[in-house]
Amino acid sequence: MAYGDRMSARVRSAERRAEIVRAALEVIAERGYRGASLAAVAERVGLTQQGLLHHFPTKEALLVAVLKERDQWDAVPDSRWRVDLLTSLVEYNAMRPAIIQTFSALLGESVTEGHPAREYFTDRYRRVRDTMAGVLRSAYGDRLPNGLSPERTAPLLVAVMDGLQYQWLLDPESVDMPAAFRDFLLLLGEHVDQRGC
Amino acid sequence: MAYGDRMSARVRSAERRAEIVRAALEVIAERGYRGASLAAVAERVGLTQQGLLHHFPTKEALLVAVLKERDQWDAVPDSRWRVDLLTSLVEYNAMRPAIIQTFSALLGESVTEGHPAREYFTDRYRRVRDTMAGVLRSAYGDRLPNGLSPERTAPLLVAVMDGLQYQWLLDPESVDMPAAFRDFLLLLGEHVDQRGC
Repeated sequence: MAYGDRMSARVRSAERRAEIVRAALEVIAERGYRGASLAAVAERVGLTQQGLLHHFPTKEALLVAVLKERDQWDAVPDSRWRVDLLTSLVEYNAMRPAIIQTFSALLGESVTEGHPAREYFTDRYRRVRDTMAGVLRSAYGDRLPNGLSPERTAPLLVAVMDGLQYQWLLDPESVDMPAAFRDFLLLLGEHVDQRGC
Repeated sequence: MAYGDRMSARVRSAERRAEIVRAALEVIAERGYRGASLAAVAERVGLTQQGLLHHFPTKEALLVAVLKERDQWDAVPDSRWRVDLLTSLVEYNAMRPAIIQTFSALLGESVTEGHPAREYFTDRYRRVRDTMAGVLRSAYGDRLPNGLSPERTAPLLVAVMDGLQYQWLLDPESVDMPAAFRDFLLLLGEHVDQRGC
């Protein structure tokens, strides 16, 4: 195969993968995590299930690709992040339960032995903790109003976002996820000046 | 069947269930969430898989029973809870990754459509948020040092515990779960008097 042919085969394969990931996201949005079978995704893109397996060997591999795509869409350049944008992100998440359900279900599975999504989540959390520490440092410097460093606060910020998602997905009537997250920002000391200190 | 016979049949069934739950906990501890198959649990208690299904119709039903048993063991009478006991609970959890992995994996699954553990987790979170609000009220009264009410702080406390468990299970070298949780207690204002206010 000539160089140009090999390149265009790779481009076609990449385009096909992107198309499959978009289709998977649609199927997830319509049918939820459990309804998003490889068969349903294959049908939507006009492939046999065998043809789909050529691009994504397992449902987990496809879901990881969907979550990576979401990470890219949600990405804010590090220099542009501000603490108040986190509130917007949580508000945005509250309007798209299907992808949050997919994230939360796959995160749960990923902590089991040898799960194919484990590496993705482990890497993602390292990266997200770093990014969040940077956001907090831009906002507060080396110490938050409560005395913690950005690096010690970042895992808590990420944990609250994830933990609230579970409570909200299980019981959306009882848990106002964006309001709860804003409360967490108060704990970081956002409003410390109003306390009469 | 005479009344006494019916009672003893019920007692025997309850004893059998308790024995199966203990066996399941052992298998989980040895082999983790994925290795804890109904077959492995049946073998340990000397039942056929069919015999086990008579007591627990699905793996999820058995795992919910294990988690309920754990809730009972971990329960502290409401009047005895103190905020610092939460630190002990998190330290204790850090020494038993298998049950925390089981909890976290099943919590993840439970947010999917029609999952058999959904009701257990929904009920559990309502109860735990209430209990934690009570603990915070005993410690701080109607307002925490940062101005939030116990009811608004409780979901955050629970979210941090759950979210840290995922980060720790994925990456125990990077995440010191008990230390991070102690940091969260600082955010609640435990040390507010040291801030020179």
